[in-house]
Amino acid sequence: MLKNKLSNAFLELAPSPMLKMFQATAKYKNLINLGVGEPDLDSPPEVIEALKEAVDAGFTHYPPMNGYPDLRAEVCNYWGDFHGLKLTPDEVLITSGGIQAIYLVLTAFINPGDEVIVTDPCFPSYIGQARYVGGKLVGVPVYEKDGFVLTAEALKTHITPASKLLILNSPSNPTGAVIPRDEMEKIAKVVEKHDLMVLSDEIYESYVFEGEHVSFATLPGMAGRTITLGGFSKTYAMTGWRLGYLMGNVDIMRVLSVLSTDTVMGVPAMIQRAGVVALRDCRGFVKDAAALYKERVDAVAKLVNATPGMSCVKPKGSFYVFANIEKTGLSALDFAMKMIEEARVIVTPGTACGKNANNFVRISCNGTPEVLAEAFKRMTDALSGKPFVD
Amino acid sequence: MLKNKLSNAFLELAPSPMLKMFQATAKYKNLINLGVGEPDLDSPPEVIEALKEAVDAGFTHYPPMNGYPDLRAEVCNYWGDFHGLKLTPDEVLITSGGIQAIYLVLTAFINPGDEVIVTDPCFPSYIGQARYVGGKLVGVPVYEKDGFVLTAEALKTHITPASKLLILNSPSNPTGAVIPRDEMEKIAKVVEKHDLMVLSDEIYESYVFEGEHVSFATLPGMAGRTITLGGFSKTYAMTGWRLGYLMGNVDIMRVLSVLSTDTVMGVPAMIQRAGVVALRDCRGFVKDAAALYKERVDAVAKLVNATPGMSCVKPKGSFYVFANIEKTGLSALDFAMKMIEEARVIVTPGTACGKNANNFVRISCNGTPEVLAEAFKRMTDALSGKPFVD
Repeated sequence: MLKNKLSNAFLELAPSPMLKMFQATAKYKNLINLGVGEPDLDSPPEVIEALKEAVDAGFTHYPPMNGYPDLRAEVCNYWGDFHGLKLTPDEVLITSGGIQAIYLVLTAFINPGDEVIVTDPCFPSYIGQARYVGGKLVGVPVYEKDGFVLTAEALKTHITPASKLLILNSPSNPTGAVIPRDEMEKIAKVVEKHDLMVLSDEIYESYVFEGEHVSFATLPGMAGRTITLGGFSKTYAMTGWRLGYLMGNVDIMRVLSVLSTDTVMGVPAMIQRAGVVALRDCRGFVKDAAALYKERVDAVAKLVNATPGMSCVKPKGSFYVFANIEKTGLSALDFAMKMIEEARVIVTPGTACGKNANNFVRISCNGTPEVLAEAFKRMTDALSGKPFVD
Repeated sequence: MLKNKLSNAFLELAPSPMLKMFQATAKYKNLINLGVGEPDLDSPPEVIEALKEAVDAGFTHYPPMNGYPDLRAEVCNYWGDFHGLKLTPDEVLITSGGIQAIYLVLTAFINPGDEVIVTDPCFPSYIGQARYVGGKLVGVPVYEKDGFVLTAEALKTHITPASKLLILNSPSNPTGAVIPRDEMEKIAKVVEKHDLMVLSDEIYESYVFEGEHVSFATLPGMAGRTITLGGFSKTYAMTGWRLGYLMGNVDIMRVLSVLSTDTVMGVPAMIQRAGVVALRDCRGFVKDAAALYKERVDAVAKLVNATPGMSCVKPKGSFYVFANIEKTGLSALDFAMKMIEEARVIVTPGTACGKNANNFVRISCNGTPEVLAEAFKRMTDALSGKPFVD
């Protein structure tokens, strides 16, 4: 009875191709999960202790709606020290993870029909969220031959009078692309010329293996046009804590704080306290995690290129390898299903990320060298007609 | 530069009258806060221990997006035992507090122009959220002489062809009204006749001091039309944990889970684990808190009626007293500002809750008898021209 009352955006909600996959995974044991977008590391022990101390100290009541001032100050310290982004605590808003942060921006800025420009492929939540707010998603195809880097040239050809928001995501989920500084500068010129605003999703800022992380708002003229997204999930292996933040103009942060108050009423108090310790005391963890994932990404890229029918360009950042599977003759979804059923390995079909990645799967480099080697052995076997036997 | 790019709903966002109040509170010490909508109790010690155990046990990774199955099962046990609401765990969706739960429903069901019916006054977040999704808020005035109870008769006169969703909130924030069963049954008939859907916000279900809590979905024919909201914030003094849930049709919960995944990506893992212990092991806490607030609400109602210029009907539920201040000659906002400046007491002006409560302030019954007595002494003094001296 309720179902036909869903709003237009939801009446049209097709069952996600991923659902079929999730259902398949429930059927099997012995699965190696290279599908999930989170570090398999434990959160830093200092952060765990900080949570326990906070809850013992009575941080169980409503927190400040825009986040504790000292947490916002630590965000400023981190981004100033590592990325040259100069901010004051009033320019920071603490959010329930990066995803809620993105949704705040889309909700507050996108009128129905406004165009939201992303790369194709892109992070799947951008696609869903643009639909929920009535925005028109415009995907700029990015190609393997270019290392999946978004170029100013390609961006230009997708701009229309309805273009409003560009979502940048460097390092990229799912492709691992890192936009180099010179290309960023060219993109900034296009942004300025066409009066776009930018949501710079820099959630993978700590995982850059070649070149540098350029924080878009540090480019000339871009601070006033850019809202920057950061978080704890990837940098500190804190996915299950749901803690992130937005950075940008103080008036905008105030508006987004009203929206956030009205739609989630603050971020758990004790979790924010733990976040202070992450930013303040865990820089060693960040460095070690980046080194570990650099090794793993190298190893997985080699394994992919050694697997018949698969190949990849080595990602420059994030912790994903975006593997070309065209030569297997399978679609991304069929490949992913086959790997679950015949290799007990979960990978993410590129289909989930747009229209331009049906020959690709995303491999999350989460596992010891032994586990990763075992996963590729199983996949190689499955691709050569030898299914995994439980 | 970004500010003129805000979407229409936000360009029109007037600075909240509450903002002026919040700024005023920052100026003073010695404030007694009867403004905030949360119990001043500590969260149950079992829940605090459960959080610490969960984070030590590694619950730091992404949780299931719709909530842990055993948490959803405990929700079913609670509502079955206390309110006769029969549910399976698939009919439960865990959310980032009650506010996010409401927003999921409004986002998934309201098309621009659809009418959302609430009482006037109502909980302020309904007002903001309806605007964000482009819905038209229709306030049905409720009156002190009726104990602020929404009647089927009044509801009827506000129904139009665009009416889609009725938000019920019994016990009510801010008025403390509890809709009696016979009126609920009449409302159900109106809902059925006009093919409405209902969001029944039952976040104060454990604080009913007279009569009974009627869970709307238990009325004949209403289960298929109703989404019920519950939470931990009020029942277990867990506001700072941001944990709530929706209950209703399994297909709808699945759609809302997709939306929730795309917009917040799950509720913190370790907090959900603590929630299991709250529902399973803390029924004594719930009973004690209800008894405590019954006493406090009685005491505050007496204090209000003994204060010159103020009066109230005794609330039947929630932990608020909605006090009539008409005889002071002040508007609600002026009264609230005067109390901050001259009594160092924070109360909430009815203005925040709609258009029909400019002669009322909401008093949250949070304080020991001594603190509450002191607050009313100060207010009495301020009203008779003797401002508080720090």
